[in-house]
Amino acid sequence: MSDPRPIGVFDSGVGGLTVARAIIDLLPHEPLLYVGDSARFPYGSQPVERIRTYALEIAEYLVRREVKVLVIACNSIEVSAIGDIAVTADIPVVGVVNPGSRAAIRATRNGIVGVIGTEATIATGAYQRAMGSAVTLHAAACPAFVDHVERGDTSSPALREAARGYLEPLMDAGIDTLVLGCTHYPLLSGLLQFELGPDVVLVSSAEETAKDVYGELVSRDLLAPEGGRPVHEFATTGDPARFQDLAELFLGPEVRNLGVRQVTVEGAWS
Amino acid sequence: MSDPRPIGVFDSGVGGLTVARAIIDLLPHEPLLYVGDSARFPYGSQPVERIRTYALEIAEYLVRREVKVLVIACNSIEVSAIGDIAVTADIPVVGVVNPGSRAAIRATRNGIVGVIGTEATIATGAYQRAMGSAVTLHAAACPAFVDHVERGDTSSPALREAARGYLEPLMDAGIDTLVLGCTHYPLLSGLLQFELGPDVVLVSSAEETAKDVYGELVSRDLLAPEGGRPVHEFATTGDPARFQDLAELFLGPEVRNLGVRQVTVEGAWS
Repeated sequence: MSDPRPIGVFDSGVGGLTVARAIIDLLPHEPLLYVGDSARFPYGSQPVERIRTYALEIAEYLVRREVKVLVIACNSIEVSAIGDIAVTADIPVVGVVNPGSRAAIRATRNGIVGVIGTEATIATGAYQRAMGSAVTLHAAACPAFVDHVERGDTSSPALREAARGYLEPLMDAGIDTLVLGCTHYPLLSGLLQFELGPDVVLVSSAEETAKDVYGELVSRDLLAPEGGRPVHEFATTGDPARFQDLAELFLGPEVRNLGVRQVTVEGAWS
Repeated sequence: MSDPRPIGVFDSGVGGLTVARAIIDLLPHEPLLYVGDSARFPYGSQPVERIRTYALEIAEYLVRREVKVLVIACNSIEVSAIGDIAVTADIPVVGVVNPGSRAAIRATRNGIVGVIGTEATIATGAYQRAMGSAVTLHAAACPAFVDHVERGDTSSPALREAARGYLEPLMDAGIDTLVLGCTHYPLLSGLLQFELGPDVVLVSSAEETAKDVYGELVSRDLLAPEGGRPVHEFATTGDPARFQDLAELFLGPEVRNLGVRQVTVEGAWS
């Protein structure tokens, strides 16, 4: 049994590409169809009703394109619309909040967990609901992070100062685990680990979500045939050139254009 | 202060590309110079003396190319030669064993940790030394994994059966944390999490090593200038075409060639 249909992944923009890439890593035979709603990005500051309308439009588009599973690779969409999407779509739906929350619950040793995200995500309290009383949760919105990441900035003094400001209350609260509750944030894990120190465990909801997608496909017998090299499709509602430019930060360097060189290293010593 | 020199990353082949990519993610302004010794791959089955000779040749090549930090992105090289490399190179040297070991020590709740790797890596006991008496460590060599990953196979029934065989003694021992002690294994994290179940925390030494590189550059004031788009160089001692083919599994899809499409999703519902 195998299922050649693509995995549908969507986001309000490029951030969900961290989830897409983690899925590609773990399931290299699976074709992906990614839609980023860049024309209407960012969702974070929009009314919930409007986010829901947008999200349902993209979900429907993907369902019509016959994806076999829907991955909501955006915290803001998930917290606003996952219920409506799950009711409407007749295929499995995977979000980012539950995988990240479960991983944090199993990772914490002292039961004090932090979560960072956009203002919209934090305001909904979705992570608090997902983790329930299993842990004491401290949340912080980090509105400046997305812009820095999309400029390719992960280490400037201004960003590091902003990060220290966001993280200080979480550190004071004694967190030993931090959930990166925004799909842009895995690119900041070097910065965050450096500022938090080595004792705090970082949980990437992108990576955890990809593992959940793996589990869904294996347990429901939806894996694509072995051995093929899949063709992925990346689509945006906005400017394709701008999308592609940003995509490189999230999807990796230009493999085909790298021009791998052959070198000789023997005898370099002498 | 800024330092435009590249970060030197090396491995016996393509596996270290998981480390390279994690570094590129976290430090998108930093140029990388990667050397994979594919012509002499795999190191795992070679005598330690020979691995040491090979490793010193590559390290010397990178030092002559004026890298600012040396990243040993290969467990087998590190356990055989990091002492010699550190003595010889007059620049910071970062390996994969210590970052992964530290992360496991902070992640475990019950103090029982597993590590998986190649036969060579496991045989040296390097992880046992790195973690000392902080945890009870159970190690398992997984000789079949690298071949599967390099064929792009992360989910076949044969691989899953092999994984269950390798993991069973670790599960029986009650591990709550597993260190992926080979740079190929992050691509198996979906499989491993699925087979181990949700309660085991996976530690990717690739990701942890990249965070260490971030910390080295920030704390030693070695960051490249902000704002540039760096040119990476990927080199192999073997066949460049074969290297490039494999590199795609590790570095991500062909961003420039994806051909991002613009789509309209509004009204798809109606």
